[in-house]
Amino acid sequence: MKTQDLAQAGAAAAKALLSATRPMKDAALRLMARRLRENAAAIFAANEADLAAARAAKLAPPLVKRLAYDEKKLDESLAMLEALAALPDPAGRVLEARLLDDGLTLRRVSCPIGLVALIFESRPDALVQMAGLAAKSGNAIIVKGGSEAERSNRALAAVLAKAGAEAGLPDAWLGQIDTRDEAAELLSLDRYVDLVIPRGSNDFVRHIKSVSRIPVLGHADGVCHVYVHEDADIELACRVAVDSKSQYPAACNAAETLLVDEAIARRALPLLAAALEAAGVSLELCPRSASLLGTSPTRRLKGDEGWSVEYLSLTMAVRVVDSLDEAIAHINRWGSGHTDAILCSSQAAADRFMTEVDAASVYHNASTRFADGYRYGLGAELGISTGKLHARGPMGMEGLMTYKWKLEGRGQVVGDYAAGIRSFKHAELPLEPEHSHGR
Amino acid sequence: MKTQDLAQAGAAAAKALLSATRPMKDAALRLMARRLRENAAAIFAANEADLAAARAAKLAPPLVKRLAYDEKKLDESLAMLEALAALPDPAGRVLEARLLDDGLTLRRVSCPIGLVALIFESRPDALVQMAGLAAKSGNAIIVKGGSEAERSNRALAAVLAKAGAEAGLPDAWLGQIDTRDEAAELLSLDRYVDLVIPRGSNDFVRHIKSVSRIPVLGHADGVCHVYVHEDADIELACRVAVDSKSQYPAACNAAETLLVDEAIARRALPLLAAALEAAGVSLELCPRSASLLGTSPTRRLKGDEGWSVEYLSLTMAVRVVDSLDEAIAHINRWGSGHTDAILCSSQAAADRFMTEVDAASVYHNASTRFADGYRYGLGAELGISTGKLHARGPMGMEGLMTYKWKLEGRGQVVGDYAAGIRSFKHAELPLEPEHSHGR
Repeated sequence: MKTQDLAQAGAAAAKALLSATRPMKDAALRLMARRLRENAAAIFAANEADLAAARAAKLAPPLVKRLAYDEKKLDESLAMLEALAALPDPAGRVLEARLLDDGLTLRRVSCPIGLVALIFESRPDALVQMAGLAAKSGNAIIVKGGSEAERSNRALAAVLAKAGAEAGLPDAWLGQIDTRDEAAELLSLDRYVDLVIPRGSNDFVRHIKSVSRIPVLGHADGVCHVYVHEDADIELACRVAVDSKSQYPAACNAAETLLVDEAIARRALPLLAAALEAAGVSLELCPRSASLLGTSPTRRLKGDEGWSVEYLSLTMAVRVVDSLDEAIAHINRWGSGHTDAILCSSQAAADRFMTEVDAASVYHNASTRFADGYRYGLGAELGISTGKLHARGPMGMEGLMTYKWKLEGRGQVVGDYAAGIRSFKHAELPLEPEHSHGR
Repeated sequence: MKTQDLAQAGAAAAKALLSATRPMKDAALRLMARRLRENAAAIFAANEADLAAARAAKLAPPLVKRLAYDEKKLDESLAMLEALAALPDPAGRVLEARLLDDGLTLRRVSCPIGLVALIFESRPDALVQMAGLAAKSGNAIIVKGGSEAERSNRALAAVLAKAGAEAGLPDAWLGQIDTRDEAAELLSLDRYVDLVIPRGSNDFVRHIKSVSRIPVLGHADGVCHVYVHEDADIELACRVAVDSKSQYPAACNAAETLLVDEAIARRALPLLAAALEAAGVSLELCPRSASLLGTSPTRRLKGDEGWSVEYLSLTMAVRVVDSLDEAIAHINRWGSGHTDAILCSSQAAADRFMTEVDAASVYHNASTRFADGYRYGLGAELGISTGKLHARGPMGMEGLMTYKWKLEGRGQVVGDYAAGIRSFKHAELPLEPEHSHGR
């Protein structure tokens, strides 16, 4: 199907999904799980073909590993789909209710966004997660996976799309495209597509943001900071700094820069450096930290490339700052608004840091690596956004929801209020479920 | 000041405003009101000069009227500023709270978006409203008013900016630009500006949306519908249709198209037409409604320009539809997602319409003219958005708010959870105020 036709069909499916009931959506999720299990052999075979091609093309081993969709991944997918089916319906929730006047009731009610384009690299299991989130939330989606996972994605999407439709979702609820040209065309179809969510490397996300006519939710950079305040517990600081940098350095929530307050640097910096180096971390030092630490094979003076480098590896920049103010200013100047932590004993310092640092997640005495939808208790993670509109930070299903205003009257007209014949009461009402749809 | 410098200063002011307390913000609002009153003579003189220039340039009388800032408008401005000061602080509200593990508490907390560009046509009183909303919400703003109100806007902005700064807001909290070139440059400064809110004509908003690199919140078109269902009360239908179309036809929430169900058309359409025509409305008829109504000086057959025309005047398109389904399909195909109403007795029909019509506001037995922030009980209105991300429909101060995630720990690291030494509890907590900031 041509991309434009696919998008048009997806937009129509999104309109039909506005009236999907919870039983239908949950039945779709359960049938998706059942059909994945029934078609496991074909899915694994497709994935084996992708893996063989990736090995033949000498793809880096971590990328090959991310590409695998095996028995363990399948079990995780099925558990995720079952868990989604058990969740309450995110649509139809009354978020606000107000009596405007007698017999004139306003409600703000959650509903799905519409048609969402999900563009991701590698990882076929992400496709299952996205499809599950879409079915539960009542959004139509068009997915574009990485070319190296094309056979796996095709097999998975075909099974999932068919199972959903069999359970009553509109046929075009899950569309798939394969090529970059199709993706480029999709990103121009702002008449049909409501939202784009890219997941992949920084360059990939930056590219999507630069070419899309449609709002994009996600993040390109994860330049996260750990600031060791003057009254920090040094043992705690060493533990948290090491975890923030080295627990999984390729993740966006890994810390890139360690800021150390001048008042504690002489005592803390040697211990921090030793702890980080013991975890395999190389340090890039500002002149003041270099003069405190000296050089070594794992320490070098930082170049003049600025402080926004996202290493995504076992390298960390280190800077001594004069004060809490300078730490906040550094982070607001050089950070990416992802996740930043202060390590300190003083609640007042923590409060100032967490209020004044302009980031999606701000932490006191905890590793930046906690910035993750699962760890936040959001269930499945749709992605992490560093934008300030719509969802911010780790996003669960709420990232796929919007709302509409519903007004129920008895024939009221504005003329009566303009003429002073009637006046508004504006009385808040309890947030009771809507009367309808058996939700 | 150069636009780039103004934006940079505004972004810095926005960071400083993250820690503005409620007492400081409310003091600023009250001082803004006081200084407006003290400087009333100079403000009125500036407005008189704008009015004289507008009359000399033979501006249309409704535009001249919108331009006026007189004693009555000043009183409204002062009352609005006082009302904002009396409202609770929209920042620092705990929206979600969860115990991730013992001593590891996650809170989602509301905070201002940052630097917002407000670009509007005419109406100097809108400037005061925007400045008040910005001060209360803790956002920095840069305003650009219409050139015909330049003297009034300069006078108002100067008084407001100075009063806010005198009360403790950062100096650059309210910036102002005058020219189109400056506005065009501002719309490219996505590094500093977080959000653009345009208010004005459709062409104006469409232009802003097409050139901005920054997210734009607002609406270009207001193609609103009134659908008369087969079981509608005809007297009610006549009253609501007339109000929806004629109570203020130039507003975006005025209805443009009347859809009449085929099953009631023979009885209802003559009465609807008579009621509309009595209110001065001309009708553009589909072939079926033309054959039912016949022609007259106020009735003509609709041309083939489609059904998305926004007349903004006393003209209304009329179409007979076969069913509720066709009415919903018509609205989802031709509407602008602003406000659409069904007039009917059946709750089931109303529920289907309100669920399946994909619009920011959907009504049952009420005039589309209710779509307005004041009428919704939102206090001041920032604008109306037909987008589905962030705020949708009439927006009050919530349109200027985002949130951040705050995590308070005791030195926890992700490694312990990855290794199975600790596991997450994910227990929901009551939404109590934050401990700090005296909010």
